[in-house]
Formats: sequence, structure tokens, C-alpha cells
Amino acid sequence: MWLYEKKLQYPVKVSTCNPMLAKFLIEQYGGADGELAAALRYLNQRYTIPDKVVGLLTDIGTEEFAHLEMIATMIYKLTKDATADQMKEAGLGAHYANHDSALYYSNAAGVPWTASYIAAKGDPIADLYEDIAAEEKARATYQWIIDLSDDPDLNDSLAFLREREIIHSQRFREAVEILKEERDKKKVF
Amino acid sequence: MWLYEKKLQYPVKVSTCNPMLAKFLIEQYGGADGELAAALRYLNQRYTIPDKVVGLLTDIGTEEFAHLEMIATMIYKLTKDATADQMKEAGLGAHYANHDSALYYSNAAGVPWTASYIAAKGDPIADLYEDIAAEEKARATYQWIIDLSDDPDLNDSLAFLREREIIHSQRFREAVEILKEERDKKKVF
Amino acid sequence: MWLYEKKLQYPVKVSTCNPMLAKFLIEQYGGADGELAAALRYLNQRYTIPDKVVGLLTDIGTEEFAHLEMIATMIYKLTKDATADQMKEAGLGAHYANHDSALYYSNAAGVPWTASYIAAKGDPIADLYEDIAAEEKARATYQWIIDLSDDPDLNDSLAFLREREIIHSQRFREAVEILKEERDKKKVF
Amino acid sequence: MWLYEKKLQYPVKVSTCNPMLAKFLIEQYGGADGELAAALRYLNQRYTIPDKVVGLLTDIGTEEFAHLEMIATMIYKLTKDATADQMKEAGLGAHYANHDSALYYSNAAGVPWTASYIAAKGDPIADLYEDIAAEEKARATYQWIIDLSDDPDLNDSLAFLREREIIHSQRFREAVEILKEERDKKKVF
Amino acid sequence: MWLYEKKLQYPVKVSTCNPMLAKFLIEQYGGADGELAAALRYLNQRYTIPDKVVGLLTDIGTEEFAHLEMIATMIYKLTKDATADQMKEAGLGAHYANHDSALYYSNAAGVPWTASYIAAKGDPIADLYEDIAAEEKARATYQWIIDLSDDPDLNDSLAFLREREIIHSQRFREAVEILKEERDKKKVF
Amino acid sequence: MWLYEKKLQYPVKVSTCNPMLAKFLIEQYGGADGELAAALRYLNQRYTIPDKVVGLLTDIGTEEFAHLEMIATMIYKLTKDATADQMKEAGLGAHYANHDSALYYSNAAGVPWTASYIAAKGDPIADLYEDIAAEEKARATYQWIIDLSDDPDLNDSLAFLREREIIHSQRFREAVEILKEERDKKKVF
Repeated sequence: MWLYEKKLQYPVKVSTCNPMLAKFLIEQYGGADGELAAALRYLNQRYTIPDKVVGLLTDIGTEEFAHLEMIATMIYKLTKDATADQMKEAGLGAHYANHDSALYYSNAAGVPWTASYIAAKGDPIADLYEDIAAEEKARATYQWIIDLSDDPDLNDSLAFLREREIIHSQRFREAVEILKEERDKKKVF
Repeated sequence: MWLYEKKLQYPVKVSTCNPMLAKFLIEQYGGADGELAAALRYLNQRYTIPDKVVGLLTDIGTEEFAHLEMIATMIYKLTKDATADQMKEAGLGAHYANHDSALYYSNAAGVPWTASYIAAKGDPIADLYEDIAAEEKARATYQWIIDLSDDPDLNDSLAFLREREIIHSQRFREAVEILKEERDKKKVF
Repeated sequence: MWLYEKKLQYPVKVSTCNPMLAKFLIEQYGGADGELAAALRYLNQRYTIPDKVVGLLTDIGTEEFAHLEMIATMIYKLTKDATADQMKEAGLGAHYANHDSALYYSNAAGVPWTASYIAAKGDPIADLYEDIAAEEKARATYQWIIDLSDDPDLNDSLAFLREREIIHSQRFREAVEILKEERDKKKVF
Repeated sequence: MWLYEKKLQYPVKVSTCNPMLAKFLIEQYGGADGELAAALRYLNQRYTIPDKVVGLLTDIGTEEFAHLEMIATMIYKLTKDATADQMKEAGLGAHYANHDSALYYSNAAGVPWTASYIAAKGDPIADLYEDIAAEEKARATYQWIIDLSDDPDLNDSLAFLREREIIHSQRFREAVEILKEERDKKKVF
Repeated sequence: MWLYEKKLQYPVKVSTCNPMLAKFLIEQYGGADGELAAALRYLNQRYTIPDKVVGLLTDIGTEEFAHLEMIATMIYKLTKDATADQMKEAGLGAHYANHDSALYYSNAAGVPWTASYIAAKGDPIADLYEDIAAEEKARATYQWIIDLSDDPDLNDSLAFLREREIIHSQRFREAVEILKEERDKKKVF
Repeated sequence: MWLYEKKLQYPVKVSTCNPMLAKFLIEQYGGADGELAAALRYLNQRYTIPDKVVGLLTDIGTEEFAHLEMIATMIYKLTKDATADQMKEAGLGAHYANHDSALYYSNAAGVPWTASYIAAKGDPIADLYEDIAAEEKARATYQWIIDLSDDPDLNDSLAFLREREIIHSQRFREAVEILKEERDKKKVF
């Protein structure tokens, strides 16, 4: 969920101005497997998923919005003191030409976010496997960004977020089992 | 802001199952000038906008998320009892082939939402005019959907939402004036 | 795998000229969860997946290309005798204006296929869950098209293809288990 | 080239209000092989094409802009007296929900125009074959729309425009021959 | 309006071969808030805007096409003497692999132009605010490119173009006032 | 056609680990004029092309899939031993953040492949000119990548592939002549 307070109050720490790292982190802001994709995917599926899973989707969906806010804060902190020249050297010249240092929902290559990244099939098992896959892909993305990063403070936060994706994945897998069990009982499908 | 309670508790009323109307209403869910676009646009701009405007963007951005939830509920109510054949006749056959009756962030023609619809320039005046334009375009979209609708209950809600856009537009215009005034005082720009 | 023989020799049967059904079936040709997406996704992942899974991806990937060929043949048979007016009435006027009766990699709404639908993370577990999700989504899509269809001959073929997706999903889930087992043995991850 | 006079003065005639026909005609406004694509493709290539071909690209590029204006006028005339209900019945409900009766650069299915439709390779032979292909595809598109149309006045104009594409194709083929001849003389390539 | 004479005659000056600067300038050629977007947006809106505003849209739309030509010439001059290696070092290797040194309608990150960047609502007030926002965003974009540039000759031209956007924005704001006044008189809306 | 054997057995040679070169080569994997585009374009057109040309499209289409496999192997070999830091330095940091070292169907700038790059008009002459243009554009792309490359082993393979495009172009031009001749005989068109 989005914060109502003054911006930047989110407790994330970065070691130093580091726009190149911001460039990679944008992948988790507006990339295919980033936090925006996750939050929008889960909240959208709630309307037609069985009631039993609505709460789970709401919980994780809103948590992903909080993560989106954390990522946004990190990117902001990594770039806010960068000059145009520093942005250019960090490979963010194209971003700067379009957005200055504002945030934008694109991936690390600058491709704008699209709903084509996410699915909603109305079939609860299909939707939940879509969600498990999303969490596994987000987990991998955090790992790749940690690999690219040399900021220990940031990496602490990224490792925390990576762990959350693992837990979400497990919860979605439990939800699959619960629904399959019920389905077998009812022979509904 | 997204509801934590059981889905469908949002107090919106539709007169009857009417998937064709749902088809048009999807424009406000995942279209260029719809509620998703609005919410994401405003919340994203907060990081680099002057502090004075952050609260306004947070207020309106979260209100737009609530409107997104209302639109979602309306679409769900308009389609939940429709058969595959009724979806087909309503022009929602392509939607059904992909999504069954699940919601999806596309416009009325079925084009997935893209961040290309929205801008973030880092320049506060440019960003605020982007926001005013967004509100005026959302207002027009509500009008076009009301024109296409024959559901008086739904139209009451749509008229209410249209009014909100007018008020948001005014507030963004006031914000422009405040920033311009300050800029003139400081000769900062 | 693509056939070298004369086109149309693929043994699929449709009851009658039925362009509206073709319109929905296009979802499996060039849609987000269609056969093109499946084939390209699996064949692309082979380069960095552990050797143990390469054969599985090749097998299923090439089978999906065969299914793509079947879908293409069905669409062709459902439309080849249709006049411009019949295409128009079936909701394929926009398709006809662009493509005549030629096939095209779009979904049922006419949105061109994009690689944004598929992922490749390099992480084998993430990639395999992506694949399981793909199969579950394809299974659901076949069901939705069967729901929309009134052609019993076609539905026989679609039911067969739907079953294949279920089997593929199981095989991908087995692959996940094998890799996890190995990972636990080696503590590689 | 765009007209400076009052809109609607372009001498194109349509028989009657006919929004369904407008829907198909939009393919030539903002579709993959439409007039916008043609005009932008040719004018863009001029900077790096050999001097000998610059004049040809400018001539045809500006003529295509005039054709774009003609198409725009036709679409406007076919829809300007249509009610929301008539737009809906003509399959333009999704267009109306977004744009009212305003024009928009999309194809007949409602997909927004993208520069991905066109190429610029810097290699003059490749660029000219791109242009020949463009003209042949535009010719075919005019034919498909004529097939879908029952408006004899409009069809006269469309047949005229189709003929122009044939002539453009020939001129581009001549340009290929001239460049190849020169290349053989100079052994430049 | 496009020039009929020999290419490169447009009176813009650049100090030296500078492909990295060309990379950023492409943002104004084929980016979201660039000259192509501006020209196409205004000329498209003319058909349904009140007669009073048609002349303004035509004036500014054609001026933007002239600016597009200026930008094209600048980019061409900044890159025409660059080797493949110089393009690569300037961050234009991806552009070169696709286009050699030809121009292309993409933004600075290489994303192809899409009509999703622009709107046409049929509502004159909404369309004019869209236009004001466009001008403010183009103004900001010129500023960001000037920030990134170290070419004083080029910056002179860019500063001139930035000023034009300010004037266009004012003229669109006047148009809003005129239409609102009339609307209030007629109570038409 | 895709190989069934163990990956990497395709007989292509690269001189050394060279991720920057891989970055450019991706243009031929998932770019507008790359091998994926070629293969999918030809195989898709077969259903409605005259029987005489079906064999040609099948031949060249399957050969292009083999080339796609070769390109994939090259990219894999150029990157498989690269560290995250080497990927970053080679301009592949954005790719790594999303995909690690996995392959993906994007162009060199990171834009995902889209079917908007290819056409299918149902008109055999238009489709064949589309194919000729495709081959000429692919030929140019190979040239631009050779220009950017400093790997003599790789360049041997790329020169071979470039030659194949020239031969394909000739064969498509012959097909045009055959169909035109027949058309003139039959006055079918």
C-alpha cells in the first residue's frame, strides 16, 4: 500500500549516489517481473478467483505495492544527487533525456511496462501457477541485481525482498493444493 | 486504495447483467485515460515533485485506486452471470477466449495497458499539466461511456466519477498556480 | 515441427466454414498463451537450462510447433470459403481489411504477438515454473474456446490439444522436482 | 502535404453516413500498411539514401500525406452524423468509448500505430525494397477495403488511391535498377 | 512541412561529429514528447475540434513538422562522419546494428514510436489540455537534452526550439479560454 | 529446424568470450529483420499463397529456423563465460538484470520481438515483396554487425549467413516473376 506521509520516509538505505545501480534496479520497478507487475497481477485476479484465495491475493498484492514503494525510494536515493553527466556515464542518458531524474515504469533497458507481461485466465489453477511463476521470476531478478550491485546496504534490502518472494511462492503453492483438494472433493472441474 | 474485505463489497450498483456495457467500461479500467493510468501516473510522480504537491498527488492517486476498484466491481457485476454465448454476442468473445470472465488491464478494444500512456518529466509544471490533461481526458471518457450506456444505476455512479475528475482537474490547476507563484518569487527556474 | 508436404495435409477436421470460430481460435495461434508463445518459449530456454532438461524442452517445444501447424490448418479451413461479407459478419472485418484471409500472429482481439508474453530468466526453477504456468494457461484457453465453439469436429481436436497441455504441465512439474532434488544434494544454489 | 484551408474541403465524396465502413477505412489511416506508415517511412529514409533518390522519396512521401488527409476526410464524413448507438452497432463502440468520433492513428482492430511497422536500414537497396513492399501491401489493403465496402462513391476514390500505389511501386522498382546499375559501374558495394 | 529541396539544406549548425549527442537528440525525433508526436497529434485532432481552433492546430502542427526536419538534420550531421566504432562507443551500437546511420522514429533508449503516446478525445477542452501538456513536456525534454549536451552551436538551436514550445503552450491556453467563454455563452456543453 | 541433440553441437565458432558482440548479434535473434522474424513470416504465409510457392516458403522458412539456432549458439558462446561485471561493461547489464545470461527474443536495444515487424496480406505479390524486402534488410543487418565485430571466426559465419539472404532474395524475386507470368496468362488478377 502507498504511504501517505512525506516521501522518502521509507526505511531503506543506500550507501552512496550510484545511478548505474539505479538503472538496474528499475527492472524491479517497471520490468516484466518487477513489483508493479506483481501487485497489479494479484489485485486484478481477485474478482474471479474462489473466495478462499481472495485474502491471499489481497495480502500479497498490497505487500508488493509496499515493495514497489521501497524500490522507488531506493532508485530515488541512488540518483537524486547525480548530475546530468553522471546520469550519462551511468548509462541513464536516455532516461534523463526523457524523464530527468523522475521515476518511470520501464525496465532496465528503458522499455515501458505493459500489461502483456501479466495474465488473468479466470481459471484458478492457471492463475495461481501464473502467480507462482511470477514470484520465482522476481526472486531470480533480485538475485541478478544483487550480482550487479556493489552497494552492501542496498544488497541487504534486496536480499530481504528476495526472501519475501520465496515465501510468497510457497503460499501460492499451498493455495494450489487447497484448491485441487477441494476440486477433487467436489469433482467440480 | 485496495479493499481488504471480501470482494464485491464496494457499494456500486448495476441494473442487470450487461456484458456489452462491461466491454465499454473496460476502457476506464485498462485504457489510456482510465483509472489505472491515473493512479499509477500520480503516485509515480511524487518522488521528484516539489514537497508542496506530494500530498495532492498521494490523495488523488489513492482516490483513483479506489475508483479502479469501483470500476472493477462494476465490470464484474455486469459480466458474472453471462454465458459464453452472451459474452460472444456482446463483443466480448475475444476477451472470453483469453480471459474467460476475469478482469484484465486492457482498453475496450482489447489492447493491453502500457506505461507509454503516461509521462513523468521531472519538471513540475510539465508533470502537472500532464495530470490536468489526464483528468480532462478521463472526464471525457466517462461521458462517452455514459453515452453508450442504457443502465441508469450504472450511469449514476459514472456521473459521480466524472464529477470527481472535474474536481481533480481544478486542484491540479491550483497546484500549477502555486508553483508558478513560488517560482516567480524565487526566480528559481 | 513444420511440415514439408503440401499445406492442408494435417489431419484436422472442421465441420463447416465458420469464420467466427476462426476468430476465437486465433487466440491459440498468436495469443499470449497460444502455441507460438509456447514453442518459442521452450526452445529459447534450452541454451542455459541444465542439460537434464534440454531434451524435455526440445520435445515439448517441437510438439508445440506441430500444434501451431494444426491450429493454422483449422483456422484456414474455417475461413477459406468465406466471402468478405461473411468475414465482416463474423467480426473478422478488421482482420480482412489488413490480411484478407491470410493467417497472422495476433490474438483474438487482433493484437500482434509480442515476446513480452514470455520470459527467460536463466534460473532453471523460475524458467520451469514459467513453463508450467504457460501450460496451465494454454489448457484454460482451449477450454474457453471450446465453450465458444459449436463445431463438434473441431472440439474433438481442441479437447485433444487441451489434454496435451495437461501432460506437458505434469512433465514440467516433474522436471522441477528433479532439479530441486539435485540442488539439495549438491547445495549448489 | 497537409492542407492549410478549412477542414473538410478535400474533394472526397461518400454516399452516406456509414460508420462500419469508417471502421475498416481506419486501416489505411493508422494501420501497418496505411498512409501514415507510408509517408513517415519515405520521408525518414531521405537523409541517408543516395541523392538520386531523395527527390523520389520526397515526392511520394508528401503525396502519401495528401492521401492521409483524404482518408481522414472520408472517415470523418462517414462518421460525423453517427450517434453513439450507431457507432456501437457498427463495431466502433470501443473507439467511441476512447475517442468519441475523433480520428485516431490505429488500425481497424484498434491497435495504435507503431514505428515497428516500418524500417530504415541505411542500405539503399534494402530501403527501396522495403518501399516497394510497402506499396504492394497498401495496394492490397485498398483492395480488401473495397471488397468490404458497399459505397460506390467511396470506392471510386479508393480505386484511385489503389492505382497510385501501383505507380509508386513501379517508380521504386525503377530506382532500384538505377542504383544497381550505378553500383555495378562503381563497384562501390 | 517537409522540404522539397536537397536534403541537409535546413539551416542548423552542429559543432562537430558527436554521435552520443545524436543518441539523446533522437528523443525529440521519435520519443514520447518529441516533434513527431506533436505534429501528428495536432493535425489529427483538427477534424472534430471546433472550427475556431482548426487554424491554430494546423499552424502549430505544420511548424512541428518543420522542427522534426530540423531535428533530423541535426542528428544526421552529428552522425554522418561517425565510424561503426564511434557509434558503438557513443552508445549507438544497437542503433547501428539495426539501422546503420539511418534515422529512425525511436526514443533515446531505442523504443519505436507508438501512437499510444498521444490522445484524441473528441472533447475540445480535453484535447487542448492534452496539447498544452505536450508542449510543456517537449519544453522539458529540450532542457534535459541541453543539460546533456556540450555542443554550443546545437544548444543555440535547441534553446530556440524550446522557446517555441513555450509560445505554443500559451497559444493553446488561450484557445482553452476562448472555447470556455463560448461554452459559457452558449451553455452548449 | 530445431536440433534434437544436445545443445551447443551446432558447428559455429567464436574466437573468444565477447558479450558486447553478443549484444549486437541479438539483433539477428529477436530484432525486426532477424532470423525469428524471417522464419515466422514465411511459414505463416504458406496457407494462402498459391501452391507453387508453398515449397519455397517452407524451404526458406525452415532454413531460417536453422539460422536462428546458429545465432542462438553464437550468442551463447559469446556470453557463457562472462561474469556479471563483464556483462555490465559490455552494455548487457539491463539484459542481465532481467535474463541473467539466458537468451531472449529482443533486438540489440532490448526491445522485445513483436509480430508488428511482419506482414501477411493474402495477396501473393505483396507477400513476396514483403519477403524480398525482409531478405534485403537481413542482409544489411548482417553487414552492420560485421562492421561492429572484431571476431574473425564469427565474421566468417556471419558472412556465410549474409550470402544466404542474397540467395533467398533472388529466389523470392524469381517467384514473383513466375506468379506474374501466370497471372498474365490467366488474367486471374
